[in-house]
Amino acid sequence: MSQKLLGIDLGGTTIKFGILTLDGEIQEKWAIDTNILEDGRHIVPDIVASLKHRLALYGLSKSDFIGIGMGSPGAVDRDSKTVTGAFNLNWAKTQEIGSIIEKELGIPFAIDNDANVAALGERWVGAGANNPDVVFVTLGTGVGGGVIADGSLIHGVAGAGGEIGHIIVEAENGFPCTCGNEGCLETVASATGVVRLARYMAESYEGDSAVKAAIDNGDEVTSKDIFTAAEEGDSFADSVVEKVGFYLGLAAANIANILNPDSIVIGGGVSAAGEFLRYRIETYFLKFAFPQVKKSTKIKIAELGNDAGIIGAASLASQFA
Amino acid sequence: MSQKLLGIDLGGTTIKFGILTLDGEIQEKWAIDTNILEDGRHIVPDIVASLKHRLALYGLSKSDFIGIGMGSPGAVDRDSKTVTGAFNLNWAKTQEIGSIIEKELGIPFAIDNDANVAALGERWVGAGANNPDVVFVTLGTGVGGGVIADGSLIHGVAGAGGEIGHIIVEAENGFPCTCGNEGCLETVASATGVVRLARYMAESYEGDSAVKAAIDNGDEVTSKDIFTAAEEGDSFADSVVEKVGFYLGLAAANIANILNPDSIVIGGGVSAAGEFLRYRIETYFLKFAFPQVKKSTKIKIAELGNDAGIIGAASLASQFA
Repeated sequence: MSQKLLGIDLGGTTIKFGILTLDGEIQEKWAIDTNILEDGRHIVPDIVASLKHRLALYGLSKSDFIGIGMGSPGAVDRDSKTVTGAFNLNWAKTQEIGSIIEKELGIPFAIDNDANVAALGERWVGAGANNPDVVFVTLGTGVGGGVIADGSLIHGVAGAGGEIGHIIVEAENGFPCTCGNEGCLETVASATGVVRLARYMAESYEGDSAVKAAIDNGDEVTSKDIFTAAEEGDSFADSVVEKVGFYLGLAAANIANILNPDSIVIGGGVSAAGEFLRYRIETYFLKFAFPQVKKSTKIKIAELGNDAGIIGAASLASQFA
Repeated sequence: MSQKLLGIDLGGTTIKFGILTLDGEIQEKWAIDTNILEDGRHIVPDIVASLKHRLALYGLSKSDFIGIGMGSPGAVDRDSKTVTGAFNLNWAKTQEIGSIIEKELGIPFAIDNDANVAALGERWVGAGANNPDVVFVTLGTGVGGGVIADGSLIHGVAGAGGEIGHIIVEAENGFPCTCGNEGCLETVASATGVVRLARYMAESYEGDSAVKAAIDNGDEVTSKDIFTAAEEGDSFADSVVEKVGFYLGLAAANIANILNPDSIVIGGGVSAAGEFLRYRIETYFLKFAFPQVKKSTKIKIAELGNDAGIIGAASLASQFA
């Protein structure tokens, strides 16, 4: 039997696992709840127990695996295989992961940041089509990303490569960002950013709009509500989506003017808007990209959904082949 | 005797040559005029003749060299070792280079774009201190650049990686650029861009300024005049330099938010302004960069001057070692 890869996607709510072929095909997958109680001290033992249980269930042993890869929130130290400051896991202090999993399972282990790992997944078997130059942008609660250039995931000198959400798109009078700067892409293109932008634009909008009325009324409005209303013809909501497309298209063009990737892949919850959002990003991308770049770099929507994490994590393990 | 590298920096006015050690130390250098007459058909034969002449002069033969590297303007095809559309050489059509030099000299040959090659030089033995992640920005007649990430020069899918001059820094109401877009960094930070910005800012400046008076008078004003006046206390010229620093700092921060390089190295003629320009770029870089990035990515002035081209070209040849 040919050897396999194990991928683990560690999140604040669930931990997802996948057993994959060397071609990136998922053969088995499962998930467990993330127990963040008591400073998240149960998380690593829960992962070890779940792995042992499933391997026994499937009749697999350590010799069946080339390696285990994991994507994690927080600041990941790839060499010591530890994580620090993953606050949604209650891991404020440095947490040993690799040493424990390698000892318990006897399989080589690799770890990287969750946004980087999702980028690797989309690049490998998703929209990136295994091209050596792909940039992944994830639009969720925040805006994250991962940069793959000339076949390498780019970490940079201090591991802050791929901070796509903190590209400045409004150099003057931008919204304040959680990072302390103003005008970051995240402030206008994350799920909360889209709503913030809508609130701001509502102040000066004078036409009829159910979304504007809901905002003015103090009702809870989500980014999904805004996209749905725009698709249904609400012209205020449409102007908000257009502005989100402008900011994302500007950021995408500047990324591509620097790196000229084969594609910029848009993922995360906000990307569920699909083509309705993609073509607006592309419109502004084409306005702002250098001529050779606009002919060669494509704007795509991610294809793997929630599986990007386990697939990308598994790809980390292929280094042990 | 240990083997050496040969670097060639092909420009529209001169062709520079260097013989380097494997550590990047220049042992010999010389230059010849570029003869662009008759569709530049003399250029490659002139290079061959000069190489043969100098090698004989120094008592060196092909076995003394690991390889020859060259930086060229125009669109470089690294695989076929040809150049197309190098208009300052009168090479409109595709020009054979590598096949001729390899046949005539019997030494392996590699070629890349001149801005990329200068980036390799500064990264290798200049301000980049041989770090795997360095971005080079050259401020000259235009604004060019080169991106080295995780040890690789990033060409991108169509060779347009490193088009730093076409990062958009004014998304609305920017100046028109030669590339057809508006608001590119080159329109405000190249030698001509600085003057264009000064002309624009002069329209609304109301204080006393010799530079503004010269502009209003229709006198020829260069970017060097503006930097010199600013250093001497002309407050209008100072406001122009400040704005140039703003644009370069914004672009540098966005590059660094994507790549988190060890350093962004500023070279080219405009960078002769040195620390006077660097600290303003850094000021805005620190305003716009993500917290982890501002702690780790440095803004530096290039160190190699005109030698960056031959040194970077020689480094291309080290691939044959």
